[in-house]
Amino acid sequence: MMDIDGWRAKIDEIDEELVRLINARAEAALAIGELKRTSELPVYEPQREKAVFEHVRRVNAGPLSEAQMVDIYERVIDVMRSLQKRSS
Amino acid sequence: MMDIDGWRAKIDEIDEELVRLINARAEAALAIGELKRTSELPVYEPQREKAVFEHVRRVNAGPLSEAQMVDIYERVIDVMRSLQKRSS
Repeated sequence: MMDIDGWRAKIDEIDEELVRLINARAEAALAIGELKRTSELPVYEPQREKAVFEHVRRVNAGPLSEAQMVDIYERVIDVMRSLQKRSS
Repeated sequence: MMDIDGWRAKIDEIDEELVRLINARAEAALAIGELKRTSELPVYEPQREKAVFEHVRRVNAGPLSEAQMVDIYERVIDVMRSLQKRSS
């Protein structure tokens, strides 16, 4: 059984992976922003954002509730949207 | 070169991994909450939260800025804190 320090070491490992993945997601969002700009598509696409949230809810197996996961993802999407806007 | 659909498929893959890791982080937070409860330690430890943010800033290699990554992590930590409180 792990003690608090053991769990914290595990959290630190997870955080490194999370930071890496969030940045990978940002790279993809920037690439899409660039493609939208060159093809004159709108940056804000509510249908796509809706699909992202539906996907997140569908794959969420807990322990976070749907509401808690969506709470985190709302912030992720806010930041990604501001990133696409800034680069346009 | 990938088109928008290709990048979106990549984002969907990343989201599945993010949801999995955020839940793994929540499992660790719950385990710590349980250990704190049995050893009567305080749930809220500002020094530990400070260390988490410092770690996140240190490993952040972009393209998200430090402020953007911290913005996302503030929400992650809020949800994790509410999770530890609820279980105590």
